[in-house]
Amino acid sequence: MIKNKFFIKINSIDNVGSVIEPGGIKAGTKISDDIMTIEYIPYAHKISLKSFKKGEEIIRYGETIGYAREIIPKGSWISEDKVELPQAPKLDELPVATKVPEPLPPLEGYTFLGYRNADGSVGTKNILGIMTSVQCVEGVLNVAVERIRQELLPKYPNVDGVMPINHNYGCGVAIDAPEAKIPIRTLRNIATHPNFGGELLLVSLGCEKLIPNKYLSDVEEENIIVLQKEHGFEMMVDIIIKKAQQCLERLNKRTREVCPASDLIVGLQCGGSDAFSGVTANPAVGYAADLLVRAGATVLFSEVTEVRDGVHHLAPRVINQEVGQKLKKEIAWYDNYLNRGGVDRNANPTPGNKAGGLANVVEKSLGSIAKSGSTAIVDVLSPGEKAKKKGLIFAATPASDFVCGTCQLASGITLQIFTTGRGTPYGLSMIPVIKVSSNTELAKRWNDLIDIDAGEIVTGEATIEDVGWELFKLILKIASGKKKAWADYWGIKNALCLFNPAPIT
Amino acid sequence: MIKNKFFIKINSIDNVGSVIEPGGIKAGTKISDDIMTIEYIPYAHKISLKSFKKGEEIIRYGETIGYAREIIPKGSWISEDKVELPQAPKLDELPVATKVPEPLPPLEGYTFLGYRNADGSVGTKNILGIMTSVQCVEGVLNVAVERIRQELLPKYPNVDGVMPINHNYGCGVAIDAPEAKIPIRTLRNIATHPNFGGELLLVSLGCEKLIPNKYLSDVEEENIIVLQKEHGFEMMVDIIIKKAQQCLERLNKRTREVCPASDLIVGLQCGGSDAFSGVTANPAVGYAADLLVRAGATVLFSEVTEVRDGVHHLAPRVINQEVGQKLKKEIAWYDNYLNRGGVDRNANPTPGNKAGGLANVVEKSLGSIAKSGSTAIVDVLSPGEKAKKKGLIFAATPASDFVCGTCQLASGITLQIFTTGRGTPYGLSMIPVIKVSSNTELAKRWNDLIDIDAGEIVTGEATIEDVGWELFKLILKIASGKKKAWADYWGIKNALCLFNPAPIT
Repeated sequence: MIKNKFFIKINSIDNVGSVIEPGGIKAGTKISDDIMTIEYIPYAHKISLKSFKKGEEIIRYGETIGYAREIIPKGSWISEDKVELPQAPKLDELPVATKVPEPLPPLEGYTFLGYRNADGSVGTKNILGIMTSVQCVEGVLNVAVERIRQELLPKYPNVDGVMPINHNYGCGVAIDAPEAKIPIRTLRNIATHPNFGGELLLVSLGCEKLIPNKYLSDVEEENIIVLQKEHGFEMMVDIIIKKAQQCLERLNKRTREVCPASDLIVGLQCGGSDAFSGVTANPAVGYAADLLVRAGATVLFSEVTEVRDGVHHLAPRVINQEVGQKLKKEIAWYDNYLNRGGVDRNANPTPGNKAGGLANVVEKSLGSIAKSGSTAIVDVLSPGEKAKKKGLIFAATPASDFVCGTCQLASGITLQIFTTGRGTPYGLSMIPVIKVSSNTELAKRWNDLIDIDAGEIVTGEATIEDVGWELFKLILKIASGKKKAWADYWGIKNALCLFNPAPIT
Repeated sequence: MIKNKFFIKINSIDNVGSVIEPGGIKAGTKISDDIMTIEYIPYAHKISLKSFKKGEEIIRYGETIGYAREIIPKGSWISEDKVELPQAPKLDELPVATKVPEPLPPLEGYTFLGYRNADGSVGTKNILGIMTSVQCVEGVLNVAVERIRQELLPKYPNVDGVMPINHNYGCGVAIDAPEAKIPIRTLRNIATHPNFGGELLLVSLGCEKLIPNKYLSDVEEENIIVLQKEHGFEMMVDIIIKKAQQCLERLNKRTREVCPASDLIVGLQCGGSDAFSGVTANPAVGYAADLLVRAGATVLFSEVTEVRDGVHHLAPRVINQEVGQKLKKEIAWYDNYLNRGGVDRNANPTPGNKAGGLANVVEKSLGSIAKSGSTAIVDVLSPGEKAKKKGLIFAATPASDFVCGTCQLASGITLQIFTTGRGTPYGLSMIPVIKVSSNTELAKRWNDLIDIDAGEIVTGEATIEDVGWELFKLILKIASGKKKAWADYWGIKNALCLFNPAPIT
C-alpha cells in the first residue's frame, strides 16, 4: 500500500489512486511530484496517476478493473462512466486447486462461552424459535408471540427471546419446481439452528404445500400445531402459548459453558460497500477470518455476484478438484439465473456503491473477496446448505444482504461479521451481528451502530492486523454473551428473506 | 343444481356428484335409484354417476375437468389420481368479446361511511403508512413504530393505526431487469393507497437501488427520512417519530362521510379452497360482485393460474378487443413465467385443495371464476397496476394469497372478500378482509374467524342470492367502520409480499 496525504494506491502496479482527503481534492492540487489534479475528485473516488489512451487497462488491487472508455489525462477523476466493464473470468479456463495455501500455524487456547447442544453444535444465544410452514399462519402466530413475550418470557430469564420464523414461502409456490429445493432446504436448516437449542415448535395451517412431515421432517409430531385442527382463533393462540411454555421450561435450564473457538461458525458479509471496504474493513475481516480458521473454527463467505469477477483468485485456493467443480457449478448456475432474467453480474452495484467510488462490479468484487483472508477453501455450499467442515467455506448465496444473511443462518452461522462503508443498520435476531465500518467518518456518525471502525487503517492509526485481532477478540466476547453488538442492544431485526428462484403460482 | 341427501350435481350434464354427507358415504350405500357406492367416498369428493371408459370425459360445472385414467365403475370415488389433466384452452383460439353481458339494472341508494381524499379516492380506514425503500431500514423503523404505537397513537383516537410498509425489495435486486417494473409499480401504488389519506412518510437508507425520487416520485422531499444522513440510531428513531407525529396530527382531523357504494374498490380472493368453494362461497361472492357492479363500484378478481383453465369463459365477457388482448397477454406472460421455472399451471393446487375434493387445477379454476359473477369485464390489470375503471376488472396476479393480496392492495382495493373451504386465518392490516366459508363445518369450528357462512347454500338453508345480499350489506357495514371483520378484531396481519419475477443479485 502506497499512501500520501491525498490518496492511497493499493498495489505497486496500480495506475489509479483512491482519494483519502475527507472533502475530496480540488482541481489544481499538486498531489505528488508529477501529478496535478485537473478537476475536483470526490472522497474515495479514483484519480488517474497516468494518462490513459482509449481502451487502456485501469488497474487497482493489481488487477484490471476496466478499460478507459475515452482518453483520460493524468490527474483526472475516473468516474464510473469512464470505465468499460471487462469480461468476467471464463469458468472453463479457471485454474482449480493450483495454489492451495499451506495451513497456517494453529492458534490454541481461545475459547468462548456457548450453549452446547445434544447434537454437538454450539449456540451463541438461547432462543425459542417457532417455525412456520406457510405465511398464512403468521398473523395468528404474531399475536401469540406478543403474548409470550409479555406474559411468559419474564419468567424465564435464561432465555434470550422468542422468534417467529415467518417467511413468504410454503404455499402459492411451485413446490415441485427444480429450484424449489433452495427455499425448502433453507427453512429446514434454519429450523434446526444451534441457537434454538434443539427445541422447535412448528405452526402449520394444514392445507399448505410445504407439508411439515414431508419437508421439515426433523419436527416431532407433538410439536406441530395445525391451525385448521383448532377450534377458532382463541384456541389457536392458547395452544401455541401452552406449547411454547413447555419449550421455555427446558430452554431456561440451559447454561453457557466454556467451548473452544473451533465451535464457532462465523458468517462474513458486506453491505453498502464503498471504495475503502476493500482496503480497510474487508482485509481486516480477512485477517480475523484467518485467525478463526487457525483456531479451528468454520468461516463462511458468500455473495456470488461479488466474487464472480474475482473467482480466478478463489479457484486456485480450493482444496481439491471436487470442491473446485462445486465452485464452478454454483457460479455457472448464478450466471444462468441472471441471464434468464435478462441481466448480468453488473446488476449488482448500487447507487451507493457508485457514490462511494466503486466504478463497477469488478472493482467491488476485488474488494469483497478480501474478506476471505488467505486460507484454503475447504468446501462450497449451495444456498441454504448446512456447513459440515471446519475451515474457510464459500457459501454460494445471493449478495442481497437479507437474502445472504438468511442463507448463512441456514448454513448454521452463529455469529455474523458485517462490513459497511455507506452504513446499514442491519441486524438478525437469531444471532449477533458485528458491524465493521470501512471509514472513520461513518464510525463516528453512527457511533451507536458500528461495533468496530476499520477506517483507522487508512489514516494509519491502526494496521490490518490490529483491527483483525480486535475483531477476533470481540467475536469471542460477543459470542459469549459478555457484550452485546449494537444491533442486539437496540433490538434491530431484519426479517428473514428466503431465496426462491422457482416460480410462484 | 341437483341435490339429494348424499350429493349435489351442479350442472345437469355433469356425470359426477360431490358428496355433501359430512362423514362421507360408506361403501354399499344406495345414493339414488340406480347408484350404489362401491367404496367409501369422502366428504366433498366426487362420486361417479356413471361407468367411465378409459379416456372418457369427466364433467363437472358442465365442463370437462379431465379424462378417466382408467375404467371407473359407477359409484366409485373419483380420486385425483384417476383424473387425467386436459390441455389448457389455447390462447390464440379464444373467442374475445363475443358474449359481452348487457349491463344489469343499476342499484341505487346504497352508501357507506368512508374517508374521502383530496384526489377523490375514498378510504375505509384511516392509517398512517410509513413506506420503506429498502429492507435494510426495517429494523430501525420497527423500533420507531412500536414507540409510535405506544406513545403517540393513544393521543390520536381518529387514527386506526400505524403501518410500516416493510418488504423484501429495494436493493440486492436487478433493478433494471425487464420484470423489475412489477415490484416497483406495486410499491409505488401501495404508497398512495386511499387508506393512507394522502399522508406518506418514507424511510430510505440512502444507498439503495430503489431511489425514492426516481421510483417513488409521489413522495415529497421533506417526508423522506434518509437514515445514512442521520447521526446514529437514536436520532433515526427520533426523526421518524417526529415526522410521524406531524402526519398523525393531520390524519386525526379526518372524519367519515356518506359516500355512494360506487366509491368502493373491492378485491375478491380465495385461499384454502375445497370442492364446495365453487358451489357455495364463490357463487355467492359472484352474486355480491354483481350487486357491487350494479351499484357502480369497482370489483377486482385475480389469480391467473386459477382462471387459466376457465379463460374461455372470461374472454367472451371482456368489453372489447383491446381488453381481450390484454387478457391474453397477461395469461401468456404467466404461462411463459411458469414454463421458465420448469412447471405449468397444475403446480397450483395444494394438498389441502386435493384433500378438499379438487382433483386438479381445471376443477379448481371453474370454481374460482364463479367469484367474478356475470357482468362484463371492463379492464385487465398487470400485477400491481392501479384500477382506473368502475365495474368488474381482472387483475392478473399470482394466486398465492399473500402475493395476490399485496398486488390487489396496489391496485387500490379498500376491502377484500376472501373465500375459504379448508380455512385460513388471513388478514391485511391496510384494509378490512371479510372471510366467507364454503362449508358450515368450518364456519362453526372457526366461529371467531369466519365472517359469513356460505355453506348453508348446500344444506338448502340459504340461496346464493341470500348469501350474496348478506355479504353486500356486510361489505357496506364493515367499510363504514360500524363493524369489524374478525381479522381486524383480533389484529391478524399477514405481511406484504411483493411479486418479483426478476432476479436478485
